[in-house]
Amino acid sequence: MLRVASEQTDGHSLDGLMADMGRRARAAARILANAPAHQKDAALIAAARELRRQTAALLAANVMDMDDAITKGVKGAFLDRLTLTDNRIEAIAKAVEDIAALHDPVGRVLAEWTQPNGLRFERVSTPLGVIGVIFESRPNVTADAGALCLKSGNAALLRAGSESFRTSSVIAEAMRAGLLAVGLPEDAIKLVPTRDREAVGLMLAGLDGNIDVIVPRGGKSLVARVQSEARVPVFAHLEGICHVYVHTKADLAMAVSVVLNAKLRRTGVCGSAETLLIDKAVAQTHVKPLVLALLEKGCEVRGDAATMAVDSRVTPASEIDWSTEYLDAIIAVKVVDDLDAAIDHIERFGSHHTESIITDDASAAEAFLARVDSAIVLHNASTQFADGGEFGFGAEIGIATGRMHARGPVGVDQLTSFKYRVHGSGQTRA
Amino acid sequence: MLRVASEQTDGHSLDGLMADMGRRARAAARILANAPAHQKDAALIAAARELRRQTAALLAANVMDMDDAITKGVKGAFLDRLTLTDNRIEAIAKAVEDIAALHDPVGRVLAEWTQPNGLRFERVSTPLGVIGVIFESRPNVTADAGALCLKSGNAALLRAGSESFRTSSVIAEAMRAGLLAVGLPEDAIKLVPTRDREAVGLMLAGLDGNIDVIVPRGGKSLVARVQSEARVPVFAHLEGICHVYVHTKADLAMAVSVVLNAKLRRTGVCGSAETLLIDKAVAQTHVKPLVLALLEKGCEVRGDAATMAVDSRVTPASEIDWSTEYLDAIIAVKVVDDLDAAIDHIERFGSHHTESIITDDASAAEAFLARVDSAIVLHNASTQFADGGEFGFGAEIGIATGRMHARGPVGVDQLTSFKYRVHGSGQTRA
Repeated sequence: MLRVASEQTDGHSLDGLMADMGRRARAAARILANAPAHQKDAALIAAARELRRQTAALLAANVMDMDDAITKGVKGAFLDRLTLTDNRIEAIAKAVEDIAALHDPVGRVLAEWTQPNGLRFERVSTPLGVIGVIFESRPNVTADAGALCLKSGNAALLRAGSESFRTSSVIAEAMRAGLLAVGLPEDAIKLVPTRDREAVGLMLAGLDGNIDVIVPRGGKSLVARVQSEARVPVFAHLEGICHVYVHTKADLAMAVSVVLNAKLRRTGVCGSAETLLIDKAVAQTHVKPLVLALLEKGCEVRGDAATMAVDSRVTPASEIDWSTEYLDAIIAVKVVDDLDAAIDHIERFGSHHTESIITDDASAAEAFLARVDSAIVLHNASTQFADGGEFGFGAEIGIATGRMHARGPVGVDQLTSFKYRVHGSGQTRA
Repeated sequence: MLRVASEQTDGHSLDGLMADMGRRARAAARILANAPAHQKDAALIAAARELRRQTAALLAANVMDMDDAITKGVKGAFLDRLTLTDNRIEAIAKAVEDIAALHDPVGRVLAEWTQPNGLRFERVSTPLGVIGVIFESRPNVTADAGALCLKSGNAALLRAGSESFRTSSVIAEAMRAGLLAVGLPEDAIKLVPTRDREAVGLMLAGLDGNIDVIVPRGGKSLVARVQSEARVPVFAHLEGICHVYVHTKADLAMAVSVVLNAKLRRTGVCGSAETLLIDKAVAQTHVKPLVLALLEKGCEVRGDAATMAVDSRVTPASEIDWSTEYLDAIIAVKVVDDLDAAIDHIERFGSHHTESIITDDASAAEAFLARVDSAIVLHNASTQFADGGEFGFGAEIGIATGRMHARGPVGVDQLTSFKYRVHGSGQTRA
C-alpha cells in the first residue's frame, strides 16, 4: 500500500531528522553505486507503473495543493506549473521510462592506458554519491530528478516547494515503491517530509558531508540563495543572458530566421536570446530587417542609437538592458564595432551560458567559438538548442554555467564522477 | 632587471590589494585561455632560464628566509623543505621545462557527435580560469604550481608560507619574467606580496568570484582550514589513510613485497599504506611472515589480538589506530572476516584516497575495485603508485579525494574545464 506522506517529523528535531536522512541517503548511495543497470532500470519502470496506478491519489493531492495555493493568491504561470492532469501524469511516467532506456552512465571506461612497468590504468565513471535537489512549484521534478539520480547510481534528497508538497509526496512514494519492488533501498529517493524552511539551510550546509552536490531547480531568487549559501558544490545557472552576434559575413535570411527562433520560440527558457549584437559593417543592410522582423512578431525592441534610427517603435536601451534576462518578448539590440567588440560585450554583460555567431566566415566563427567563455557556443544555430534533449543527452537535471565538473546541460553522464582502477602483477615503486 | 618583491601593499588596504590581484588575474586568464601552446611553452622555457640565471639571488633570499626560520626555532624536515641549493634550483628549473614538454591540455576535443538535424557538437577542453594555490614551506611550489597553471591556460594566485616568502618572491618574479619575455601578461602568475595572514581568508572567500578553485599544498591543518572555510571548490585530500588488503588467494611473496613497499618506500607521502588488512582464511599462513617482514625493516606494528599473537613486539592497536595517518614507520594490522569486512573497514575508517588488494582471484579483485569508493584502487600493486608521475601525467599539483571535477592525481588535464562548440548551418529549434 502506498503511504501518502504527511508533514511530520515523528517527534524528532528538524536537525536530527535531516541528519538521519543524510546518513540513510549515504548508506543507500553505497548500495546504488554498485547496482547493475538492469536493476536500476527495472526500478524506474516499476516507478512509472506505480505513478500511473496512483493517478487518482496524485490528482487528489494536487487538488489540495492547488486549493491552498489559490487561497494564498498564487496564480498564472506558477499555478499552471503546479497543476497536474491525467495527461501530465502520463507524461511524467513516460519521462521516467525514457530515462530507464538511456545508456548506463556508471562503469564506463573513460580512458585506459598502460605504463612501461606494466601497470594498466583505467579511469572509470562512478556515481557522485548523494544529490540534493531543491525545487519550487513543478511537482514533476520529484520524478525527473529522482529518476536521473537513480539512473546514475546516486541517492536523491528532494526538497519540494511548499505549494507542491502533497503532490510531490505522492510522486516520491511512487518512486520509492519502484526501488522497493526490485530490492533497492527506498532511502535512495527521499522527499524532505516537512515544509519547514530551515530544512533548505541544513541541506545547503551539506548534512555532515552527506550531500555531495546541490541542484536548485527554480527561479533566480532560489538559485541565488543556493549559490550564495551552499557549502557544497552547486550545479546551476543563475541566469541565461544569451547573445546572438550577427557578423559582417552573416547571411541576412539566416540571421533573421535564427534570431527570431532564438528570441521568440519560447521566451521563458534560459536559452532564449536576450541581446542581439550586429556588426557595424552590416548595420546598413541588416539592422532594419532584423528589427522589423522582431517587431512584426510582437517583440519589443530596445536599442542603441543606431537601432533606434531604423524604426520609431524601438525604445532606448539603457545600461541595465545589456545585463537583463527578460524571459519575455523583449530584446536589446546593439551595433558593435567588430568581432572583438562583440566578444568584449558578451564577456562584460553575459552570464557564460549560451551565445551564437551568425556568419559564413569560418575563421570568424572559429575565433568566436574559441574566445567566448560560455558553456555553449554556437555557429549558425539558435541559442534555444541549449537543452540536454537537443544535445542528445536524453534528459537533463539542469544547465550549469560554473566551470567545475559539469558545464552546460547536466545529463546522467554529468551526474557521475570517476575513479582510477589500476591492474598490476605485484609491482612496487622504485 | 628582476625586481625582488618586498613585502608591501603600496599604501593600499589588504582588501583592495587582494581584490585588485583577483581582477588582474581574471584579465590575464582571459588572454592565457587563448594563448597558443607554443607561446605558453616558450614562456615556461624562458622562466626556467631565468630561474637558473637568478641562482645567486635565489640563494641569497633563501639564506634570509632560513635565518629567520632558525631564529623562530624552525628545524628538521620543515627547515629541509625550505632549503635551496644549486642542485635544487636546477631541479626546479628542469621541472618547469618538463612541464613545457607535456601535451597542451587546452583545446582537446573530448567528444564529438552529430544530431539528426545536422548540428555537430564538440566538447572541447578549456582552462578553469584562476587557480589559487596556498602552500607552506616548499618554495619550489611557486614554480611547479605556477608552471602547471600556465601550461593549462590558467592564471595562478600563489600564497607562500611566511617562512619561504622571500625565496618564493624571487621564484615568482622569474616565472613572470618568462611570461613577459614572450608577450604574455605577467599577472598570470602572481605571488601574494604580503605575509599578512588575512590574505588567506580573502582568497578562501574567492576574491569576488575571481578565484575558481583553491589548491592547498601543505600539512593537514592547512588543508583542514581550506576545506572548512573555502567558498570556492577545493582540490585536495585531507589525509591518505591507505589500506592494503591481503585476500584469501594472495600470493604470500607478492603480499610481503607489496606491503613493505606500500608502507616503507617513503613513509611521509600520502600514498603510503597505514593499515594492513589480512583475510582470516589465510591468517595462519600470512600474518606471521608479513608482520615479521615489517618488524625486520624497523616498522612498528600495532595489531588486533590475532596479530599480537604472532610476535611479542606487536603492540595493541586501539580504535584510533584504524583512522590514523601515521606518515611514519608504523602500521596497523587487522585480521578481517572476508572481502566484505575489508571493504566495510575501508569505508568506515578510510579517507577515499588509495587502497590495494593482493589476490590471484580475478573476481575478488573485480569486486574490490568496483566497491571500494576511493580515488585510486589497485590490484596487486603498491599504494605508493598514487602519484601523477607514476600515472604518466608528467606532474601533478596534488591529489584530490573529493568527487567533484578532479579525483586522484591532479595533472594538467584535470586543471581544465570544457565547453560545447556547436556547428550549424542555420538550424532553428522546432
